[in-house]
Amino acid sequence: MPMQFKVRIFEVEQGQNEIVLNEESGAALGINHFDRVSVRSHSRKAMAIADFSHELIRSHEIGVFEEVANQLQVKNGDWVFVEPVHRPESLEYIKKKLDGRTLTGSEIGTIIGDLMQETLSSTELAAFISAIYTKGMSVEETAELTNAICESGDVLNFGQQLVVSTHSIGGVAGDRTSMIVVPILASLGLKIPKTASRAISSASGTADAMEVLTNVTLDLQQIKRVVDKTNGCLVWGGAVRLASADDKLIRIRNPLHLDPKPLLLSSILAKKKAEGAKYVIIDIPVGSGAKIEDVEEGKALARDFENLGAHLGIKVQCLISDGSEPLTHAIGSALEAKLVLETLEEKRMNLLLEKSCLMAGVMLHLVKGVSKEEGYRMALQQVHSGAALEKLQQIIVEQGGKRVTSKDVKTGRLHAVLKARERGKISHVDNRAVSQLCRMLGAPQDKGAGVLLKAAKGQHVEKGQELAVLVSNSKEKLAYALQQTENLPLVQVQRIIIDVV
Amino acid sequence: MPMQFKVRIFEVEQGQNEIVLNEESGAALGINHFDRVSVRSHSRKAMAIADFSHELIRSHEIGVFEEVANQLQVKNGDWVFVEPVHRPESLEYIKKKLDGRTLTGSEIGTIIGDLMQETLSSTELAAFISAIYTKGMSVEETAELTNAICESGDVLNFGQQLVVSTHSIGGVAGDRTSMIVVPILASLGLKIPKTASRAISSASGTADAMEVLTNVTLDLQQIKRVVDKTNGCLVWGGAVRLASADDKLIRIRNPLHLDPKPLLLSSILAKKKAEGAKYVIIDIPVGSGAKIEDVEEGKALARDFENLGAHLGIKVQCLISDGSEPLTHAIGSALEAKLVLETLEEKRMNLLLEKSCLMAGVMLHLVKGVSKEEGYRMALQQVHSGAALEKLQQIIVEQGGKRVTSKDVKTGRLHAVLKARERGKISHVDNRAVSQLCRMLGAPQDKGAGVLLKAAKGQHVEKGQELAVLVSNSKEKLAYALQQTENLPLVQVQRIIIDVV
Repeated sequence: MPMQFKVRIFEVEQGQNEIVLNEESGAALGINHFDRVSVRSHSRKAMAIADFSHELIRSHEIGVFEEVANQLQVKNGDWVFVEPVHRPESLEYIKKKLDGRTLTGSEIGTIIGDLMQETLSSTELAAFISAIYTKGMSVEETAELTNAICESGDVLNFGQQLVVSTHSIGGVAGDRTSMIVVPILASLGLKIPKTASRAISSASGTADAMEVLTNVTLDLQQIKRVVDKTNGCLVWGGAVRLASADDKLIRIRNPLHLDPKPLLLSSILAKKKAEGAKYVIIDIPVGSGAKIEDVEEGKALARDFENLGAHLGIKVQCLISDGSEPLTHAIGSALEAKLVLETLEEKRMNLLLEKSCLMAGVMLHLVKGVSKEEGYRMALQQVHSGAALEKLQQIIVEQGGKRVTSKDVKTGRLHAVLKARERGKISHVDNRAVSQLCRMLGAPQDKGAGVLLKAAKGQHVEKGQELAVLVSNSKEKLAYALQQTENLPLVQVQRIIIDVV
Repeated sequence: MPMQFKVRIFEVEQGQNEIVLNEESGAALGINHFDRVSVRSHSRKAMAIADFSHELIRSHEIGVFEEVANQLQVKNGDWVFVEPVHRPESLEYIKKKLDGRTLTGSEIGTIIGDLMQETLSSTELAAFISAIYTKGMSVEETAELTNAICESGDVLNFGQQLVVSTHSIGGVAGDRTSMIVVPILASLGLKIPKTASRAISSASGTADAMEVLTNVTLDLQQIKRVVDKTNGCLVWGGAVRLASADDKLIRIRNPLHLDPKPLLLSSILAKKKAEGAKYVIIDIPVGSGAKIEDVEEGKALARDFENLGAHLGIKVQCLISDGSEPLTHAIGSALEAKLVLETLEEKRMNLLLEKSCLMAGVMLHLVKGVSKEEGYRMALQQVHSGAALEKLQQIIVEQGGKRVTSKDVKTGRLHAVLKARERGKISHVDNRAVSQLCRMLGAPQDKGAGVLLKAAKGQHVEKGQELAVLVSNSKEKLAYALQQTENLPLVQVQRIIIDVV
């Protein structure tokens, strides 16, 4: 027996479909706190989680949060019908996983389907994530999960053409290899539609740095057009709905700081599968201050990726790289974009170019059957010939920007110099501390903010020598960040004489 | 660096402390979705979980949900200061439990403390509950948890006087033993301050049935006064803050349908400890349709209760009872209250009276050292002498009601008769189906609604014979419920000849 209620809209996003009823109306409907209801407006229907209010909602009213209001296309004062619905089946399967049992493909598909239908609450999703964290998943389950996540969103389709992709687990400041690998491989005729992320806890993501040079918010058709024309793209993944169930899972996983391996693996490979990639190279930076500190752990993760790839029909090759220090001296969106252009313009060898050519070389080894060394030389040749820079410019233009040189890139107008407080040898430059400092300087919102490192590991420095230049567009932020460097282990200087007894 | 925002109140209870900021303000504060912030008003301070809105909240505004608005005592247009706070320590301990490690008393205390301070979000609590569900807790951890939950709320204190209590795991329709056990034991000089619950999924809880006769919403001081005067009480636990962390945990557990044993055990014994009980009898009904279906499972739970009690300095004695069928023929708040009074007035032996005297007898065995048989006789004597009825009347009066007889109790004015559709023997009367039917009839909101069973298990019935009378105050509900009986396995009649081949 559905009951009728008058809509009162609460203009707040809840991250889940939610409505609020008066406690007595809830009792009359026979529902408890967090039970599910179906809400029907004149023309639409939505599922929602029911919450109760003691006094604020009168018995003939329903409080409707933004997501539900949009789905129902209702306004204040409209009438809607509400009735209880059964608990979704997927709750049984979440329990099954909590009990340590193996889920079938159809059960996993049902969970992801309910997730997409917004019929699972955040607490239920937290239980699902906890279940996977504590009980794990077999490679078969993980493959089913990856397929279900991939199918939850849009996919790119390039027909019979060979599509490749690269991905980095991240955590290394200044690692903008994608901005060089993509043009190299695209210039050699491979399709590489790269969807990248924005900074989460770092100074800049690939999408942020690329956005300094061109538009990165493209829809699926625009991406298709750019890649058809240039073979590559470098766009923000958040603007398209590839593997969209993953975004919903990440929204719950991040605040919990829970990264169960099956979710980490499926998250990355579902996106790659949705890009249509048949060959994928995954960079796993390892070292102190990186996401993975231990080489053996990195290798185990590599095997898991390759194994899962095999179940998905994707050839995955992982690289373990040194992630203990920033890859380049320029950290921050504009500083990084500028360095990428400088590197391609001046064809100057640096760690960024070397790593990019190594990665491109491995990809060429996989798809063209050449040796890795030959692949590396082929990649470097594309840089030396200017083909890589030309390809990057084409991609920039097709995505909606103008051809640029490194000199056109504006970085922050305010600078401060960080100097060595004592003489010694630099023992460590910390990724996390560099990212934190950049954020104090205004990154990632202030694209011009960042840090230029002036000293590298192993180097001897004198007291008062420049260690880094802090860059920002805000005076207050610059002053605050400079003051904070006293507590940040940004550049660690090892004294030559530790102590005099 | 705290930032200042203008308050916009959202008059909605969120079940957790929550505020909403514009996405850019969140980035400026350096916080992510679901991070914690401290919010400071003119005179108060509160912790809250931060959510973001794209457009609805302007960059100088903060959306404040009801809980936070109350704590801060702010109104629309007030200014507050917001700054990020560290992740609470307890998240590390929740992770530790997810990793299967043992928590110390201080770690458990920190989690419950943060829970009470509202610094844990519902998803984090869901992860905690999932962790306990998948990894379990030792009896020592469970005892620490019970103590922390007990200390989270108010406690009753009767000095040196002997306090006892009883509890039923529930799930048996019509089981109003507390309303007879409490007056029996109180009339024999034991202090028994019984806090009871309302119906969750059943037709009526002890608090609902007692409310037909008197006020059950008493505060701590009123309870103390009633028990000082009469030795007993029968009040609604929801009106006092005994073991209040438990209520918050249940708010998350119930919709998840997760009942990890350590939480079940601690939930019950924390409330008993807060009542000040030194001796506790726990009734564990077992059987088809009860919460626990298997006797061995019931016995294992009994050992866990007794074991945990020993760690808490409480002598716990469990009883395994037959929970496969309703205990009495009258189900529904008023019908049950009426039957309790009739039983005590007419001193008529029935299952309700027998079970009550058995439970009271076991308690007398524990505290007075008499044999259980002697205890049973002593209990029955209190009923026969009229002392139990007189004590119940005293409690009713002290709680704010008037002396009543069973004839004063008003039950629903509309009746419908459910008849046997065929001849046969009654093989089962289902608790869950009876509860469901009562709720269709309007229970628990309609105190007069319920079911009077007219046939019991084992009995032979003829086609057309009365099986039950449905009672309600709503014509629509009565018609709807009667129609639904066709699909409900309320009374199962076994045909004598199953089939004729």
